[in-house]
Amino acid sequence: MNLKYKLLSRLNLPQDLKKLSLKQKEQLCGEIRSKIIETVSENGGHLSSNLGAVELSVAIHSVFDSPSDKIVFDVGHQSYPHKLLTGRYRSFNTLRKRGGISGFTRPSESEHDSNVSGHSSNSISVALGMAEAMKLSGDDHHAVAVIGDGALTGGLAFEGLNNAGRSGTNIIVILNYNEMSISKNIGGIAAYLSELRTQYSYKKLKIGAKKFLGSIPVLGGGISRVISASKDGLKEKLLHSTIFEDFGFEFIGPVDGHNLEKLEAALRSAKEMNCPVLVQVNTVKGKGYAPSETMPGEYHGVSGFDIETGKKPDCGDSFADVFGEELARIAERDERIVAITAAMKYGTGLNHFKGELKKRLFDVGIAEEHAVSFAAGLAAMGKIPVFSVYSSFLQRSYDELLHDISIQGLHVVLAVGNAGLVGEDGETHQGLYDIAFLSTIPNVTIYSPSSYEELKRCLNKAIFEDEGLVCVRYPKGGEACCPISDGDYLFRGNSSDTLIVSYGRTAEAAYSAAEQLKADFLKLTRILPLHEEAEKIIRSHKKIYVFEDVSKNGSIGEKIRLIAPETVVTAIEGFVPAMHICEAMELYGLTKEKIVEKVKSDEQA
Amino acid sequence: MNLKYKLLSRLNLPQDLKKLSLKQKEQLCGEIRSKIIETVSENGGHLSSNLGAVELSVAIHSVFDSPSDKIVFDVGHQSYPHKLLTGRYRSFNTLRKRGGISGFTRPSESEHDSNVSGHSSNSISVALGMAEAMKLSGDDHHAVAVIGDGALTGGLAFEGLNNAGRSGTNIIVILNYNEMSISKNIGGIAAYLSELRTQYSYKKLKIGAKKFLGSIPVLGGGISRVISASKDGLKEKLLHSTIFEDFGFEFIGPVDGHNLEKLEAALRSAKEMNCPVLVQVNTVKGKGYAPSETMPGEYHGVSGFDIETGKKPDCGDSFADVFGEELARIAERDERIVAITAAMKYGTGLNHFKGELKKRLFDVGIAEEHAVSFAAGLAAMGKIPVFSVYSSFLQRSYDELLHDISIQGLHVVLAVGNAGLVGEDGETHQGLYDIAFLSTIPNVTIYSPSSYEELKRCLNKAIFEDEGLVCVRYPKGGEACCPISDGDYLFRGNSSDTLIVSYGRTAEAAYSAAEQLKADFLKLTRILPLHEEAEKIIRSHKKIYVFEDVSKNGSIGEKIRLIAPETVVTAIEGFVPAMHICEAMELYGLTKEKIVEKVKSDEQA
Repeated sequence: MNLKYKLLSRLNLPQDLKKLSLKQKEQLCGEIRSKIIETVSENGGHLSSNLGAVELSVAIHSVFDSPSDKIVFDVGHQSYPHKLLTGRYRSFNTLRKRGGISGFTRPSESEHDSNVSGHSSNSISVALGMAEAMKLSGDDHHAVAVIGDGALTGGLAFEGLNNAGRSGTNIIVILNYNEMSISKNIGGIAAYLSELRTQYSYKKLKIGAKKFLGSIPVLGGGISRVISASKDGLKEKLLHSTIFEDFGFEFIGPVDGHNLEKLEAALRSAKEMNCPVLVQVNTVKGKGYAPSETMPGEYHGVSGFDIETGKKPDCGDSFADVFGEELARIAERDERIVAITAAMKYGTGLNHFKGELKKRLFDVGIAEEHAVSFAAGLAAMGKIPVFSVYSSFLQRSYDELLHDISIQGLHVVLAVGNAGLVGEDGETHQGLYDIAFLSTIPNVTIYSPSSYEELKRCLNKAIFEDEGLVCVRYPKGGEACCPISDGDYLFRGNSSDTLIVSYGRTAEAAYSAAEQLKADFLKLTRILPLHEEAEKIIRSHKKIYVFEDVSKNGSIGEKIRLIAPETVVTAIEGFVPAMHICEAMELYGLTKEKIVEKVKSDEQA
Repeated sequence: MNLKYKLLSRLNLPQDLKKLSLKQKEQLCGEIRSKIIETVSENGGHLSSNLGAVELSVAIHSVFDSPSDKIVFDVGHQSYPHKLLTGRYRSFNTLRKRGGISGFTRPSESEHDSNVSGHSSNSISVALGMAEAMKLSGDDHHAVAVIGDGALTGGLAFEGLNNAGRSGTNIIVILNYNEMSISKNIGGIAAYLSELRTQYSYKKLKIGAKKFLGSIPVLGGGISRVISASKDGLKEKLLHSTIFEDFGFEFIGPVDGHNLEKLEAALRSAKEMNCPVLVQVNTVKGKGYAPSETMPGEYHGVSGFDIETGKKPDCGDSFADVFGEELARIAERDERIVAITAAMKYGTGLNHFKGELKKRLFDVGIAEEHAVSFAAGLAAMGKIPVFSVYSSFLQRSYDELLHDISIQGLHVVLAVGNAGLVGEDGETHQGLYDIAFLSTIPNVTIYSPSSYEELKRCLNKAIFEDEGLVCVRYPKGGEACCPISDGDYLFRGNSSDTLIVSYGRTAEAAYSAAEQLKADFLKLTRILPLHEEAEKIIRSHKKIYVFEDVSKNGSIGEKIRLIAPETVVTAIEGFVPAMHICEAMELYGLTKEKIVEKVKSDEQA
């Protein structure tokens, strides 16, 4: 028996959970916290959100019967306690490793993971689909969406609420309120919820008001006149006071999200209602680990840390950082520049907008669609908006890019981070599709620098020289080690018939391989449209190899094949689960060795 | 002087509007209505939404100074009165014709059209971008978003509200409330607004309540105890009662949207507040024309009608109808089938879900993202969801298709109408991108039938034989006249080296051209992945021509070029403005004559 994890190591979860006393459950919560801190300090992952959801997860699995009841986690970055509670204690040390436990929910991993999670704000919609399916099939189990207040700033969540509230299904939405997503939440809904949070006596208020209203005489002055003037009027307003009730939900809360007894009582009431219920649970992000409790944002997603000191490894500089610094520098000189982030000020490097520049930084919440339509409005008025966003989240904006930006030919710059392979976050976060979907938009320009120098130059060109929709995309992490281009491409001739083409992250390996093979090398900095001269170079070679860490379908390689049919494209097909970026580069044939091997074997064939 | 349009024909609008008396403005409203009814009866277009917005548009241009104040119409299908009020009376008879006045707002057409409109729910975001730009530039003009309650069911609108309410800008959101988008609105927000609508005395209520609360003694039993128990508590609830106020807006309304005097007064108040204000205006869709007032849904979008009788031309059957009937037939036999529409029950043919089947029809509002995530939940529980949607609106769901459906390999069927050229709606509604963006999604299957027979067969295959994400796409209007395939392709050999390939709408012209040219002909029914045998046929020809009415970038032709480099692709590049589908087919080389010409000139070259 493991002394540290007495309960976790011994229990058959989730079944055994229902046999535990409150005291034992509290002990279990402690063990879950320890296990998460221990594992994340080693493997990296999400810390604060998971530590905040420990008691909530225990309460959920105490009250509901997974997998018959469906638990749908929004984003899924708070699902570690759920994983430990559903039979994954023993494999938990493989968290975020190749072939291991995912950092998000994956149905392929456990019957208790109801859906693929990773992107924000979809949980209510998915849970509602499940609830409607159960209703149609005469199954009276519950679908439970667990969503943070950050995710509630996404429009998709509102579409879900709008459809769920009056659905007459057994859907329960648990609003895990902790006043932040990744950065501090901003906007109307955040302020509203913050107000609601202070109303611990909310339930009491409703009961009191009900009694009081019943006692008002129907005739007479003042308020009663007002009531009779408006059919539903005041009474309605008093008894239906939260936005969620306006949407048709029964409302329970706010409940202390770290008090197991109260949590279970609230969830049990919600379950008994057999109708759409929203339960607001107030939690502390990072709860139970001093460094993350004090600075939850700093420990939202980490690549590991020292448990004793909380110290995180210094990751050095990154494309995101260099982008943020450079954009701030440009913005200081040019008042037209405005920066937009969808709740990712830190991840995107826009934290470099400080002091006076803050006025020109817009954090719009987890609202990538709005970010783009908002940028359209800014651009129409002569501003130069730069929307900085991760590749996989930009997928949300496809229609707005086409409809609001491109048809009108507005000048908007996209700074797309985490473009290409992203590593341990897996399938849902890979930046493999941006080139494919952006290139379907007429007149788009796309840069993919492989060095900081190039990033800065591309950004300046995108802002000051190009027109229309321009995208500068760059990978997670730091620059590649590879000769730097001073234009839209770099060519290194070795008088060969064979040309190796690459860009971005893969340029380093492709260049080394070309050197070893004595092949010609072409690095693209502007990948769309291809520079005329680059196109000429491509056409002048007999055998062309393109290497890129993006989806093959819609890739630059395929576009090159359209002008040079002899081209052989090495890119990524299918979904890429969690693994280290280096492992993925190896797996998909994008390391120097694999490139050399590929070209040689082709030549011999 | 035109006797019928005394004011419209004579005034210099919008400037002269401010000089008119109330009586004259009312007369002008009548003229605008007549002109719209007259023009739409001839040219087709949106009727009900425009007739409902006549007084509102006159009031807006009376109170605000366009183009210094920015008016942003959501969807834009209510912008005809605005167009007549901003110098387009004389060209209005070219409405929706090639080179004429667009049925939506287009900045290329007038400085009074602030943005490209067409898709729903983006107006608040765009207006907020403009308002923030003005604030940064020290310009104290207003940005005014005009949005219907239907568009408010889209999550993007909520993202906009969330960001706008506490922005401190001069943004005014006019909620044009008419209780319907295209079909009757459904969901929490619709019910909520409907409740609000009945509260004509809402403003009065607030004032009454304020006075009343002031008079309550602070000590004592009942309500006052409750108030002191909760800091903000009841008072807050009474004075901040609408969702919009919860989001940070000042709220004015509801205002009678056909009473010019009241409208102007309300808008003037809103303007004077210099902060985010939401004005709710209650209008009657179709106002002033008996047939459209009685059946606004029937006259939402029309292709013409007889003014006297209201009779609309019989358009015959269509792909949408055949789809709806067939799906209803399938659903009657198989309980797993559920149908989903995003507020387009009629346009998509899902009105054929009647009686008992209604339980399995979900109208989710204008919420294409939710529709797909909701479908994921249904599919995960063993249902077979069929989401029926127009091609250009499906663009909104790109991320959810990838993230919620495809990674998990869920079986969901997309029935995509208005795929390809759509005619008079122009740039924003063309269904040119579905193949391009859907084909970037791993493992997708796409059918593009050209006849009703094929549509039915493809739909059955998609539902019962295929796995994962399957799309059946079909054009606006009726079937092509062309031999029908009984599998995934149809081949007509003429022992030629030349192969003409096509699918969907363009198959008819391509087939006739092939017959005339004595070329071989290949019609694809399943366009992705290509059938093995179809691929063999393609490879066995020396010269291949593909004709398709979709974006060339990402087209099937380009995919064929990757396997057969000799392929010549004729497809569409750039955006296609409003014109008759036949004109566009001619323009882009997709008629029989143009196809013959193309192949012949190539052979001679």
